[in-house]
Amino acid sequence: MPLPKVVSVGAGFGGLSCARALAGKPADVLLVDRHNYHLFTPLLYQVASSLLNPSDIAYPIRAVFRGARNVRVRVGEVAGADFDAHWVAVRDVDGGVVQRLEYDYLVLAMGSSSQFFGNVGIANASHGLKDLPEALELRNHVLRCFEAASGEPDEEARRPWLTFAIVGGGPTGVEYAGALVELIRLVLVKDYPELNLRKVHIVLVEARDQILPAFPKVLGDDAELRLRQRGIDVRLNTRVESVAGDGITLSGGEKLRSKTLVWAAGVKPSELVAHLRLPLTRSGRVEVDPHLRVADYERVFAIGDIASVPYRGGEMPQLSAPAMQEGRSVARNILRASRGAPLETFRYLDKGIMATIGRHDAVALLGGVALKGLIGWLTWLFVHLYYIIGFRNRIVVLIEWAWDYFRYDRPIRLIERAKESKS
Amino acid sequence: MPLPKVVSVGAGFGGLSCARALAGKPADVLLVDRHNYHLFTPLLYQVASSLLNPSDIAYPIRAVFRGARNVRVRVGEVAGADFDAHWVAVRDVDGGVVQRLEYDYLVLAMGSSSQFFGNVGIANASHGLKDLPEALELRNHVLRCFEAASGEPDEEARRPWLTFAIVGGGPTGVEYAGALVELIRLVLVKDYPELNLRKVHIVLVEARDQILPAFPKVLGDDAELRLRQRGIDVRLNTRVESVAGDGITLSGGEKLRSKTLVWAAGVKPSELVAHLRLPLTRSGRVEVDPHLRVADYERVFAIGDIASVPYRGGEMPQLSAPAMQEGRSVARNILRASRGAPLETFRYLDKGIMATIGRHDAVALLGGVALKGLIGWLTWLFVHLYYIIGFRNRIVVLIEWAWDYFRYDRPIRLIERAKESKS
Repeated sequence: MPLPKVVSVGAGFGGLSCARALAGKPADVLLVDRHNYHLFTPLLYQVASSLLNPSDIAYPIRAVFRGARNVRVRVGEVAGADFDAHWVAVRDVDGGVVQRLEYDYLVLAMGSSSQFFGNVGIANASHGLKDLPEALELRNHVLRCFEAASGEPDEEARRPWLTFAIVGGGPTGVEYAGALVELIRLVLVKDYPELNLRKVHIVLVEARDQILPAFPKVLGDDAELRLRQRGIDVRLNTRVESVAGDGITLSGGEKLRSKTLVWAAGVKPSELVAHLRLPLTRSGRVEVDPHLRVADYERVFAIGDIASVPYRGGEMPQLSAPAMQEGRSVARNILRASRGAPLETFRYLDKGIMATIGRHDAVALLGGVALKGLIGWLTWLFVHLYYIIGFRNRIVVLIEWAWDYFRYDRPIRLIERAKESKS
Repeated sequence: MPLPKVVSVGAGFGGLSCARALAGKPADVLLVDRHNYHLFTPLLYQVASSLLNPSDIAYPIRAVFRGARNVRVRVGEVAGADFDAHWVAVRDVDGGVVQRLEYDYLVLAMGSSSQFFGNVGIANASHGLKDLPEALELRNHVLRCFEAASGEPDEEARRPWLTFAIVGGGPTGVEYAGALVELIRLVLVKDYPELNLRKVHIVLVEARDQILPAFPKVLGDDAELRLRQRGIDVRLNTRVESVAGDGITLSGGEKLRSKTLVWAAGVKPSELVAHLRLPLTRSGRVEVDPHLRVADYERVFAIGDIASVPYRGGEMPQLSAPAMQEGRSVARNILRASRGAPLETFRYLDKGIMATIGRHDAVALLGGVALKGLIGWLTWLFVHLYYIIGFRNRIVVLIEWAWDYFRYDRPIRLIERAKESKS
């Protein structure tokens, strides 16, 4: 009996976990992604704040599966699909060549992108933190702001270059805000002795009434206190209404003048889910059954940020841990289905959530235990190091972290200009 | 008496050495560069071949001069100058703001760019190896060629993706060719088990009758032998006549079909030297007197690739060592001039030249002694490590080299897409 052909779209946490769980098992897997690397997104904000390099958190997918004879890799994008005839069309990223790939089982794990809630002006004016090009572009931009401020003799004109608005008080916004303030106060202060860096103004905007709204109140309040102690201007119950040039208008009417708007305020599922006409819930995520199969399509699974998995009266949060567990569950179910065994029901085991604020400072909720400060920070360090792929990457990240910790330095302060591609 | 104001244009080997020699001395220095980093160009080919990261060989200029109170840094480009009125106009790289900077002494060290000998077609179709964006673009391109070949079922159509033409048999071309063959034969062979990598064709084209024409014949012949043993197709006495699409036509009529043309065939001085109407020799380099002062302009010095410094009956080669020695000599002369002392005559101390071909293999001519093979390679390693700026960078490069050496791996195999800048 031939091995089941599995096509998996997306090599993020969900798709990669699924493919890894199928490596060495009786299945023929083709893993497709737009990029040739898997990205460890939780540390993307450290690329944006000049602490890590892209190669420290991006792992070539082919390297992950070097030893796995039954997993092949393809760099491309999904152009279409026919769920009745059981094929997906994949386009080469650079050429236009489209190939039809037939499958016995299809795993959709395309992930999400920044959610601007329909505000095109904000979408165009802001910097995202969802992928590598965005993180690098934000890094370059922030460094350029300091160069521009340094060359600007007029104090009023200098202000927008040194004002930074971060929208979104969840882990991404909080972690980036904390890292940015450390980059400036510990490192850039040495590079720009001519600038008065007390004039730097970092504003963190959160629509709800608590920083880290998904965390227990005691931890959210603690995080808010620590951020304020570090000089970050935290605005709760506040939204960004509009952006025009340097002017950022907040709900309530206040207008900030800033050259930097960082958007970390929410994600929405890949546009592909609508393009492929999958059944969606009201939130725009794909409807799945208790085995993570797409409603109506027995051979198609959906996992990760795109999937609407019922959880505690709502939907599963769009985080890496659920995606990884769903990926492994789908791998087990594909193997069961292919041998005619009954499928398992997916059950999420919530191990906890964490967010770091800076040196010696993080909040974590692990196994129901709330951790703060230094112990929270050490936990944060170890858990993140554990989940990074590759021994070398762990060593490099550890060295970068140690260098930053002991030397108060972030040596990756390079402004790289993008070069147009010829190929 | 006020300190002499020194404006130095360019933070490459020449400009940086000059500014470092003036740090802590009685002079007020402003160092201007288009980038916010100094680039260790000899290792650029290792960024292009996925062994090093940009941050391993690019050092933020402000970090170099952190402790130097008399050296300030400015990121910008020279827009014009008046050598009689003693000022240069500098434009901010992003804005259009132009400022006039008055000087007592001006040091011009803008460096060089790729020389295409007037062939616009080749300029547009080739990949350079002169700066970071080019090195990253080449790295991305080569990896994309393997992805494309991997997805191409027809063998004839696959061939141009796996054929690589490198033009220029000097150190840059030789070192990149050697690194490329190692990347492919030691690392990519594991990532692309579906490809027959014996079909890869790397051609190294050199116009003269010897590889490494600036080296003694015995070392050039040795390098050629080693390159051929590694499977590189070396073509001496050959030029590239023209490029059209995938077709590269060589002198003698042969036509290669290749998606990759790497240009390492020569450099020419920055176009600024003509724009600023400096006195030039026939080679397009700036005429200078024995103290490296620009002919006719007593307060202006020119060093590095742009300067025509007489040497052994010809002009000083465009390498890093002469640039560094010239930079230091100019620094001494500026201090002498400012206190009315007679200027020194510049004398170049030729310590030697080196080029690496791969594992255990390099050629070096040091102090008149020719070294080959393993001993040449170890010498190459130590000398390059010595000249890298920064303790951390030395450690990181050493770790990357060790990883590559022991694990036969080049983990920085990422295809990054450039993102348009919003700022």
